[in-house]
Amino acid sequence: MTRTIELVGFDADDTLWHSECYFQEAHAEFERIVGAYIDLADAGVHERLLATERENIKLFGYGAKGMTLSMIETAIALSNERIAAAELHRIIGLGKAILQHPVELLPGVREAVQAVAATHRVVLITKGDLFHQERKVTASGLADLFQRIEIVSEKDEASYARLFAEFDIAPDAFAMVGNSQKSDIAPVLALGGWGIHVPYPLVWALEHAEIDSAHPRYAQVDNAGDVPSVLARWNCAVDGRCGAQNRE
Amino acid sequence: MTRTIELVGFDADDTLWHSECYFQEAHAEFERIVGAYIDLADAGVHERLLATERENIKLFGYGAKGMTLSMIETAIALSNERIAAAELHRIIGLGKAILQHPVELLPGVREAVQAVAATHRVVLITKGDLFHQERKVTASGLADLFQRIEIVSEKDEASYARLFAEFDIAPDAFAMVGNSQKSDIAPVLALGGWGIHVPYPLVWALEHAEIDSAHPRYAQVDNAGDVPSVLARWNCAVDGRCGAQNRE
Repeated sequence: MTRTIELVGFDADDTLWHSECYFQEAHAEFERIVGAYIDLADAGVHERLLATERENIKLFGYGAKGMTLSMIETAIALSNERIAAAELHRIIGLGKAILQHPVELLPGVREAVQAVAATHRVVLITKGDLFHQERKVTASGLADLFQRIEIVSEKDEASYARLFAEFDIAPDAFAMVGNSQKSDIAPVLALGGWGIHVPYPLVWALEHAEIDSAHPRYAQVDNAGDVPSVLARWNCAVDGRCGAQNRE
Repeated sequence: MTRTIELVGFDADDTLWHSECYFQEAHAEFERIVGAYIDLADAGVHERLLATERENIKLFGYGAKGMTLSMIETAIALSNERIAAAELHRIIGLGKAILQHPVELLPGVREAVQAVAATHRVVLITKGDLFHQERKVTASGLADLFQRIEIVSEKDEASYARLFAEFDIAPDAFAMVGNSQKSDIAPVLALGGWGIHVPYPLVWALEHAEIDSAHPRYAQVDNAGDVPSVLARWNCAVDGRCGAQNRE
């Protein structure tokens, strides 16, 4: 280890603010709607919706609009085309409700980002729907804390490698903070960066991945409030200059 | 005028490749589908769809997914909720067809971008759906010619001003090439930049704007092939060094 961490990336949905819970509420309401047409116990509604989403993501990408279209498709298929137009209109309403939902910050987020921004460059790195993500960044009141907002279509090794090139930074000078081991942690560790996992109680089934918790550049914390002290500990181990602000 | 043009932005849809024609084909098919439920002559289908799109764009942003949801909403409303689920599924298919359509470059585009890239930095600046735009950029085979791909949620003065800051460039060292007077030309001229309008035969009703064709930093050309000579003429007028390559 030769470099201190200079640049810190924060994921947005379910790291800075709630998101997955609104999607799961929409899924629950979706099941109530299609439950009028089929026997929910037999139909494997959840699995069918997930299979449709997985297939459509190749075409739609992430976000509430694609999910809404996938819900409509699944409802039509599960009901053997019997579902009424009015019910499908309710499903569009579920998608709109997600897009209109106020931004609710997670505990300790504002203070954590402020503390990290005082000693590092910070960027927000999120995937999904550009328009919706920009709305949420603006509504969050956090936009001014970030040097840059990067909205990418997929958070994989190629995307992070491109970001490192754009920021002109070595991988081991970068730490990523996020709730998704698949999108926020695994690709960054693989490239030689650092990952701080902040679990969110709900994980979308398409976001699961296994991480070796003993990885030397990996930490898991209970909430964003613990991020500054992890960064201080890592930087201290690298440069040996462990000042008072780094004591935990 | 003190600066030569250093950075040239190209719009993507209907400037580099066809796009609006696929949307209008989808709209025509949409009218055939709802025509089974209502009298098309009376209903003002086109105006109703446009009104729904205009309202939903505040929530959905641009792109085929939002348009598909707007078509479904309009079909449900126009049919007084009588439209069959199977017909709504066909409407989803119209959206998917747009998302899957092969990229068809407009005449002279590849040569024009190559010629401009030989003497300027070039960037692609497009609005709309991040995932779909990235797919098209990759499929176009043009990605390597651009220093950077900027996908923005709206092309207004604020977006261009942010880009100028990121590229560290004065407005009068920037020229934008595009088919939309509203999105590509008007905001750039207003900020002090240069605009080259390349009209596309079809213009979406939400993209119309009036430009003073006598504006000193404005030109209209028949196709992208004429862009390099316009840039050469402008740069020649600024720096007076009109070499052989700038003769027209």
